[in-house]
Amino acid sequence: MKLTTAGESHGKALIGIIEGLPSNLKIDVEEINRYLALRQSGYGRGGRQKIEKDTVEIISGVRNLLTLGSPLSFAVRNKDYENWREVVAPEGCDTQQRQLTKVRPGHADLTGVLKYDQTDARNILERASARETAARVVGGSIARQYLKALGVEVSGYVKSVGNVVDPHIYAFERLSEAKNHLLFMLDGEKEREAEKLLDKLKAEGDTAGGIIEIRVKGLKSGFGSCMQYSTKLDAILCGAIMSVQAIKGVEVGLGFEAAKKEGSKVHDEIYYDGGYFRKTNNAGGIEGGMSNGEEIVLRAAMKPIPTLMKGLNTVDISNNQPAKAAGERSDVAAVCAAEIILESVVAFALADMVSQRLGGDNMGEVLERYNALR
Amino acid sequence: MKLTTAGESHGKALIGIIEGLPSNLKIDVEEINRYLALRQSGYGRGGRQKIEKDTVEIISGVRNLLTLGSPLSFAVRNKDYENWREVVAPEGCDTQQRQLTKVRPGHADLTGVLKYDQTDARNILERASARETAARVVGGSIARQYLKALGVEVSGYVKSVGNVVDPHIYAFERLSEAKNHLLFMLDGEKEREAEKLLDKLKAEGDTAGGIIEIRVKGLKSGFGSCMQYSTKLDAILCGAIMSVQAIKGVEVGLGFEAAKKEGSKVHDEIYYDGGYFRKTNNAGGIEGGMSNGEEIVLRAAMKPIPTLMKGLNTVDISNNQPAKAAGERSDVAAVCAAEIILESVVAFALADMVSQRLGGDNMGEVLERYNALR
Amino acid sequence: MKLTTAGESHGKALIGIIEGLPSNLKIDVEEINRYLALRQSGYGRGGRQKIEKDTVEIISGVRNLLTLGSPLSFAVRNKDYENWREVVAPEGCDTQQRQLTKVRPGHADLTGVLKYDQTDARNILERASARETAARVVGGSIARQYLKALGVEVSGYVKSVGNVVDPHIYAFERLSEAKNHLLFMLDGEKEREAEKLLDKLKAEGDTAGGIIEIRVKGLKSGFGSCMQYSTKLDAILCGAIMSVQAIKGVEVGLGFEAAKKEGSKVHDEIYYDGGYFRKTNNAGGIEGGMSNGEEIVLRAAMKPIPTLMKGLNTVDISNNQPAKAAGERSDVAAVCAAEIILESVVAFALADMVSQRLGGDNMGEVLERYNALR
Amino acid sequence: MKLTTAGESHGKALIGIIEGLPSNLKIDVEEINRYLALRQSGYGRGGRQKIEKDTVEIISGVRNLLTLGSPLSFAVRNKDYENWREVVAPEGCDTQQRQLTKVRPGHADLTGVLKYDQTDARNILERASARETAARVVGGSIARQYLKALGVEVSGYVKSVGNVVDPHIYAFERLSEAKNHLLFMLDGEKEREAEKLLDKLKAEGDTAGGIIEIRVKGLKSGFGSCMQYSTKLDAILCGAIMSVQAIKGVEVGLGFEAAKKEGSKVHDEIYYDGGYFRKTNNAGGIEGGMSNGEEIVLRAAMKPIPTLMKGLNTVDISNNQPAKAAGERSDVAAVCAAEIILESVVAFALADMVSQRLGGDNMGEVLERYNALR
Repeated sequence: MKLTTAGESHGKALIGIIEGLPSNLKIDVEEINRYLALRQSGYGRGGRQKIEKDTVEIISGVRNLLTLGSPLSFAVRNKDYENWREVVAPEGCDTQQRQLTKVRPGHADLTGVLKYDQTDARNILERASARETAARVVGGSIARQYLKALGVEVSGYVKSVGNVVDPHIYAFERLSEAKNHLLFMLDGEKEREAEKLLDKLKAEGDTAGGIIEIRVKGLKSGFGSCMQYSTKLDAILCGAIMSVQAIKGVEVGLGFEAAKKEGSKVHDEIYYDGGYFRKTNNAGGIEGGMSNGEEIVLRAAMKPIPTLMKGLNTVDISNNQPAKAAGERSDVAAVCAAEIILESVVAFALADMVSQRLGGDNMGEVLERYNALR
Repeated sequence: MKLTTAGESHGKALIGIIEGLPSNLKIDVEEINRYLALRQSGYGRGGRQKIEKDTVEIISGVRNLLTLGSPLSFAVRNKDYENWREVVAPEGCDTQQRQLTKVRPGHADLTGVLKYDQTDARNILERASARETAARVVGGSIARQYLKALGVEVSGYVKSVGNVVDPHIYAFERLSEAKNHLLFMLDGEKEREAEKLLDKLKAEGDTAGGIIEIRVKGLKSGFGSCMQYSTKLDAILCGAIMSVQAIKGVEVGLGFEAAKKEGSKVHDEIYYDGGYFRKTNNAGGIEGGMSNGEEIVLRAAMKPIPTLMKGLNTVDISNNQPAKAAGERSDVAAVCAAEIILESVVAFALADMVSQRLGGDNMGEVLERYNALR
Repeated sequence: MKLTTAGESHGKALIGIIEGLPSNLKIDVEEINRYLALRQSGYGRGGRQKIEKDTVEIISGVRNLLTLGSPLSFAVRNKDYENWREVVAPEGCDTQQRQLTKVRPGHADLTGVLKYDQTDARNILERASARETAARVVGGSIARQYLKALGVEVSGYVKSVGNVVDPHIYAFERLSEAKNHLLFMLDGEKEREAEKLLDKLKAEGDTAGGIIEIRVKGLKSGFGSCMQYSTKLDAILCGAIMSVQAIKGVEVGLGFEAAKKEGSKVHDEIYYDGGYFRKTNNAGGIEGGMSNGEEIVLRAAMKPIPTLMKGLNTVDISNNQPAKAAGERSDVAAVCAAEIILESVVAFALADMVSQRLGGDNMGEVLERYNALR
Repeated sequence: MKLTTAGESHGKALIGIIEGLPSNLKIDVEEINRYLALRQSGYGRGGRQKIEKDTVEIISGVRNLLTLGSPLSFAVRNKDYENWREVVAPEGCDTQQRQLTKVRPGHADLTGVLKYDQTDARNILERASARETAARVVGGSIARQYLKALGVEVSGYVKSVGNVVDPHIYAFERLSEAKNHLLFMLDGEKEREAEKLLDKLKAEGDTAGGIIEIRVKGLKSGFGSCMQYSTKLDAILCGAIMSVQAIKGVEVGLGFEAAKKEGSKVHDEIYYDGGYFRKTNNAGGIEGGMSNGEEIVLRAAMKPIPTLMKGLNTVDISNNQPAKAAGERSDVAAVCAAEIILESVVAFALADMVSQRLGGDNMGEVLERYNALR
């Protein structure tokens, strides 16, 4: 299963094509739209999320709500395009407007301008922007529906915002509550603390990041492989997570904590009671590059939003003079968006692993094969 | 550039094929062997590292020390094979000997046995074993020689062993000293503390992990891309790192720390003085999925070795009765090996990114194109 | 460079995404539309080609007519969709209408129904249909513009229709005339003979195929590689050609004739006169899996259209009784469409080979590197 | 399933790695060696085939004759290496010896020298040589064993040598006889005629090519796909065939003949008698890019061997003066070798298609899934 995306931030639409879906998978468009709305939600978001109410339009690959086995293509229109058409249209437009030359630290602006031989960072940021992740949320939502048919679920929550950390560990069943919260946190007190932090940062023109935990429940053992390095499940999932804008770190299970402890406190002993099981899950569900049947546990670190209202020091590339970086967006934090995006990319990467192991051209075949796995 | 590896831990040899090398790259076999030796070094290693003194044999792709542009294949013989031939030979052998059925927590054993329909975990562990990384060290060492021709260097050191952490930050030039130390640490006092920890753990039959920092100096900006998620440099480098046995977390630049700080303390402001530069490098050299011209800084968390002399609780899969896990190896820690392996996989992944951007069939062309980059 | 396509024959649109285009390539939309129109032209076409006047809509990857280096996505709307919406829409629709159960020999119908677990071959043919090639013509037209910037041109003509064969050999410069002819043939007399044949076949409810020759002029030597089988230029170009609907054979240069002749009559001797050159081109411009600097010459055999007005014997899969195959389309021949499609897939595959060898992020870099090749 | 090969013609060994084999496939080494011997057989071969008696050495991926699911690596030693060591060794050697500068028409020599920046075509031909195909015969032989476990068989014969054509059509069961013949032809009279032709050409210092037919029996329908152009079975099989040295054309079923006939004489009508079947197989077993359950029929055209004893006109690249091309080899025809190689590449490409559709980690799973296909 492969997702190819296209589309600029203020262009006509984001476009995606998913190849490798089996036929006869029922597609729930409302659910995709719910995840698109969740990507736009969260305390600390700025103005744009109110302009766009993203919805998906499926263009091909589905008939009467069932997949055909052909490439599923979709669009998420940029409603803002009407306001930007004369500045960014594919056909002739006025590229002198809305130029961005005060390149923003923490963004692709400066490197992109040099690499792609541009003088206006708009030609870079339009694609480098995290708006692209709307297409990945669509892909992930469809992957989720494929996984759900097999009994596999992906969920998550925000573990910290800035230096406000929720220290608790939660059962998988509780995670879905997070989406009812303004910051997708599960500890109400910590969440109120985090909101205060964001209010303060907003007043100061500053921004915050956070830590997000993603979990997968119900996946059988043996996905990924120990036989070639490029097929290891942890490599693939963590690579997917690191491909999301603003993510600077990722860990599985105990993660960095595991590096500090002695082996006897880390490894999950094995028991048998009709089936094999563990009493602990420090491995985060992955051993030897394969799912081991326990919950998959991943955590990612998101850096603070790099566009600050107070403006960072930079250079204007039109004259190489010192300048204050432009404030293209005004979010203070986007941890909720990141949480949804990370669920999405994990779901998609997993669905790809599942479909590689199972093969199968139609959902009947896929289900039969999944159920036959030991 | 692509590295495909093969070979079991006690089989005849590890085999690797590198595709995509340009012609006329000078190969220094002694240097490859030095890295192979370093992979086997380090305080806390057990007996096997003394049996094998790994050396590489180049089989194809090189003539008179220069690459031909054809696939470079190589072997690293397993000297131990003579002792194992009758147990593991491809042709008929005695598979009743040296069976491993007390599957080891933290390893591929149990999952692998179910996935590949085996009754003896030897059929899994022989390939899942980290011995496979010797082939990746060869690949990485050759990639390093390609990078070095362009002025790019990869180095690193051990930042922590168990709970003993070196808190200092070092200039790139100092990192090479680490290889003169028994534990590849740069702070002598901390290293002695770490050695004591390992002695204590060894006495207790326990093990340790650690944190490794890898750095890349001299890479121009613009490697990787902000244009499609699958081409982002951080996703690719971190995926490569997570594909190494025992690695449970990875971060770029400030990494998880970045999630705690406000934006104004994280993003690296931009200055101009004939060229663009930064005074800080919290981004770890990667912005927008591309190298930004600063040093690339990566850190990885290695879990403690999962084979403990004191034996973890597990199940004997031949009868599903409780058992103590087998002690196939007796290392207490393998942080030095991991340090070399991580340098190697980072070097290889980078060389691949470089060769994708530059193309080029011979080193003259490659150099000319690299030098022409802005 | 990679082209991913999606879209069903009577669905909303065909969608394509091209990844790997450098920035700053000027896109000529009118030229793309001209090739789309040519794909729909030609003597012997049925009714649908009059309903649809295909035009491309670029959605992303281009601003002010210049590529951005980001994925270029595009749509070709199916104007016929309005008439089919209630039968094929992704959302709820009436799948009882317009079922096709009298599966057509020579099509994907029967195999597809079994593979994708369907009862209605409409769920197969909508994607298997050659309408999908409109997206490949767009991709090929853009690839052509990339190649043209380097001085490389792709052209071709129809060499035979049914048993009417044009025996002449033409200079590259004459090939473009073919598009002014109703059947894209260059010999006027043979073309009139072919038209008569098609009139006769139409009266009989029968169909014809033909042979198409594609040529490439101006490509420097050394594209493709002799170093790994998967990188050979002939393998890649012929694979691309065989991926086009209805193509049953392909040959390079002398092709099947070469099998009959002695070596001394086949191999193109080499001369030098300031540069290397040949007096013959029996190799069709490819030796050792690489372009040798001569014109690339490819010929493909197209089978007759498998949907016959007179109806072939088949089975109705709804009851497994004998039946006459449905006549979904009424073209007698589609050799002109095939000619344009083959030019397109050859252009795209070549552009991919070129971009792999040159790398390069922007057209300035690409041009400089191409010009520097020996 | 993927085969990566390495190795030069006079180097130490050819090396191959097969990734993606399931575990528990029984490997018959003797059978692999039989195919290697067949590759070296045939009337019209020169001296080298007597020096080398190729045998495979399996290095990894197999234990006690059963695959492990890990990469299967192998070597085919070049016995001639001992005579060439001082000229081609990876380590220091004497590159002044045995230089080839009189570049041979029809080979990679001239293009390769320019592309890889060499002055001696030995650095090109050592890899471009068809000796590389020995590794593909090993890969294909193992793929065959995988296919055979599913009841799928690949066979073939030589249909023509030069202008001597066997006009008959044979049942699949008769094809295996061909390997008992000196030229792998099935018509004894035609074969004697072909031998005479080769004798005459040998006396004249000239060479011949021929046409080879490859057939596949027992493959269920639905391999390949009609849903994306890159997944079509005909594209993949024909691409594989065109990747073999000296092949200049390929066709499926009626192939080029189909272009001449009317549709009603070409398409294979469908009947039902408890199962679907055809009375003809003009499609050669592939419709809509998928196997349709009939025999797969492929034919390839091999050009005459380009190294002629009588020497073609060429240029000496050391001084750009006219010269007679060097006679590195002295075969008159190699149609038998090509026949075995083409069986091998078809088998491997098919096995890959099968493993993509079925997935599966062990042979039990693979068989169960194959048997469950409709």
